[in-house]
Amino acid sequence: MSTTPRGANTRASDHVREERLWQRHMEMAKLGATAKGGVNRQALSAEDAAARGLLGSWAAARGYEVFTDPIGNLFVKRPGTDPDARPVVSGSHLDSQPTGGRFDGTYGVLAALEVLEALDDAGIATKRPVMAVAWTNEEGNRFQPGCMGSGAFVGAYELGTLLDGRDPKGKTVREAFGEVLAAAPARLEPRLGFPIDSYIEAHIEQGPILENTGNEIGVVTLIQGMRRFYVDVHGEEAHSGTTPLRLRKDALKSAASMVLALEKVMDDPTDTVRFTVGRFEIYPGSPSTVPSKVHFLVDLRHPDPATLKRLGDAIQPACAAEAARRGCTVDVTEYTTVAPVPFGAETVARVREATASLGFRHIDMISGAGHDAMHVAKVAPAGMIFVPCWKGVSHNETEDATPRDLANGTRVLADTLAALANR
Amino acid sequence: MSTTPRGANTRASDHVREERLWQRHMEMAKLGATAKGGVNRQALSAEDAAARGLLGSWAAARGYEVFTDPIGNLFVKRPGTDPDARPVVSGSHLDSQPTGGRFDGTYGVLAALEVLEALDDAGIATKRPVMAVAWTNEEGNRFQPGCMGSGAFVGAYELGTLLDGRDPKGKTVREAFGEVLAAAPARLEPRLGFPIDSYIEAHIEQGPILENTGNEIGVVTLIQGMRRFYVDVHGEEAHSGTTPLRLRKDALKSAASMVLALEKVMDDPTDTVRFTVGRFEIYPGSPSTVPSKVHFLVDLRHPDPATLKRLGDAIQPACAAEAARRGCTVDVTEYTTVAPVPFGAETVARVREATASLGFRHIDMISGAGHDAMHVAKVAPAGMIFVPCWKGVSHNETEDATPRDLANGTRVLADTLAALANR
Repeated sequence: MSTTPRGANTRASDHVREERLWQRHMEMAKLGATAKGGVNRQALSAEDAAARGLLGSWAAARGYEVFTDPIGNLFVKRPGTDPDARPVVSGSHLDSQPTGGRFDGTYGVLAALEVLEALDDAGIATKRPVMAVAWTNEEGNRFQPGCMGSGAFVGAYELGTLLDGRDPKGKTVREAFGEVLAAAPARLEPRLGFPIDSYIEAHIEQGPILENTGNEIGVVTLIQGMRRFYVDVHGEEAHSGTTPLRLRKDALKSAASMVLALEKVMDDPTDTVRFTVGRFEIYPGSPSTVPSKVHFLVDLRHPDPATLKRLGDAIQPACAAEAARRGCTVDVTEYTTVAPVPFGAETVARVREATASLGFRHIDMISGAGHDAMHVAKVAPAGMIFVPCWKGVSHNETEDATPRDLANGTRVLADTLAALANR
Repeated sequence: MSTTPRGANTRASDHVREERLWQRHMEMAKLGATAKGGVNRQALSAEDAAARGLLGSWAAARGYEVFTDPIGNLFVKRPGTDPDARPVVSGSHLDSQPTGGRFDGTYGVLAALEVLEALDDAGIATKRPVMAVAWTNEEGNRFQPGCMGSGAFVGAYELGTLLDGRDPKGKTVREAFGEVLAAAPARLEPRLGFPIDSYIEAHIEQGPILENTGNEIGVVTLIQGMRRFYVDVHGEEAHSGTTPLRLRKDALKSAASMVLALEKVMDDPTDTVRFTVGRFEIYPGSPSTVPSKVHFLVDLRHPDPATLKRLGDAIQPACAAEAARRGCTVDVTEYTTVAPVPFGAETVARVREATASLGFRHIDMISGAGHDAMHVAKVAPAGMIFVPCWKGVSHNETEDATPRDLANGTRVLADTLAALANR
């Protein structure tokens, strides 16, 4: 793809170095490496601190300014020619799930750093500063909520409340961040949040669509919305040997009927609806006792707000009808509601143009998962670039991606950021 | 019911004292009493030892011989006139589930003791000795297997293996039994198992049939058979936001389909089949992950061996068909097989005669649950007497029964044991 010689017409993408980018992923993957080839690098842990230190050392080697904000978001800045211009920002996160992979989050941070260097290597000056960022605690596993750093940056959460949050062992975010700063010193910028021009995040797809359709780049137009529900089914405990089936109020069979009834409600010829029951617990859980209670979670996602509303609102009546058929009762409680986040028309167009001009096979797509870009889109035009990952597997130690795909996404990112920073 | 005066024609049942029997239940219920009105008196615990001590003190007060065998079964003996005659035995167990009730097991032991005293009070001499027994560890919760004492008594299990068994904290049956003997001393009879003439066990029904049909006594003809199966469903983990439904191998939806498919297989107009899924576990259990694995248990019971075989054998093909529809696989493993245990014709007839002659509303019924009588039936003619319990609830702290129903069952037991002991 990169045949253009260095010079006046040189593109930032021509100076993205696949080998350097890949080697840095492999270096990062050693920090929190698991026996099965994955990564356990939870937010604000010693491993996270080591990753931040490594990122900072690469940035320092190129003379970039590095600073952290009060929630621990780590910024690397390449200056622009206009001292008053707002920066163009790109990044993702360095923290992982407890049994996470080598590319989720890390890719977006390393791709952004690669673009800063590619701009230097290409000799491209930009009007606006270009910044790489590693947002704090995207995964939301050790500390809640997830997307903590990006959410705090845009004012979605109150800083003091976040810093008082505790992990399961009782350590606060404040204490953990203090340990991170001690282990990986960086200038602490007292200000939380600052005006930015635009934001582009590169990420592995975490789904199988690019791989299945043979595309190299996903131009992300929107992060779909999500509604999550607790479903609590109440039946009656009974002895499994002695109680005739017609006298039972069996919460398990009732809940199984609900899952299948909801599957019919969610039926969608376009296969756009995402309907998942990922947690399902029964009580008391004894082989000789008819279950009296089932607690399960419904995760529903869709890009269209009206469809998301219609389908989500259909869950309670469908469950209630199944409960009534079996003498049970049911409570349905919505506990998370996230509206779809459409990205800015211009940022999406810039990503699409850069991709097309580089000749990559690409499709427009929605993001099925939440990302830091979801928050940042509230304060600036945002966009995302997806690259394929093996079998769509993510949040898993077997997560994988090819050096070529990672580099191609970074090439798209480089030309997009250059265009945004010079427009 | 009891209008016959004391004398030559007096019946043992006339001397069953409802008040004494009830008070003893209330005394026993204090040992391991729970805040919710139930009992936590697990096998060979300090509470079990206290219950044994209390039983022994009541027996001693009437001058009965008390002894324990090497697995801790506790016997109370009223002598017969024929020193060579085998004893007629009756009893149940004093141990409970961790959140058990006041009557399960305890009733059968106290009813048997009540009969010994009623025989004395009636001035009835019997040819054969009559013995009350409290079998060790019927519930099988702290130590496995359940029905340990009765199983050991009939030679179904090897004594040394049982004594080496450990509770979840690592204490062996041998150690726990030693502590019980220290706390509640009883003569240790070194012999395990001895010839008996016949065995009758009184028990709360643990099901709703007597209550629902307005009967006072269940004449138990048979303990139904049971087959238990592990069902392991294997799908594929995937991100719930990003993976299109048609590309998923969703173990949870697959397992829900299996439960409902099995419900159709088990459909029975006579409502005799007992089909229960009492345990159902999904992995990884995250709201944002499509479940890759479900492990559930099927408990199937039926009185007819041929039907039990046919229905049990249909489980694997039904599950495999549902798994195939969704790209999953399934393993079905039978892990418990208990054939139906029919009781002896004569013992059942004696129970039925005693019931009819006392004028109680009664029906023949099968036992849905397993009991110590299941083992004892292997070495002697056996039978059981069921009395109603509130709403059929058992293995629960709210388990309840009326003083009148308990006394009526004991009256049937008294006349049955007297007849057996003098035939």
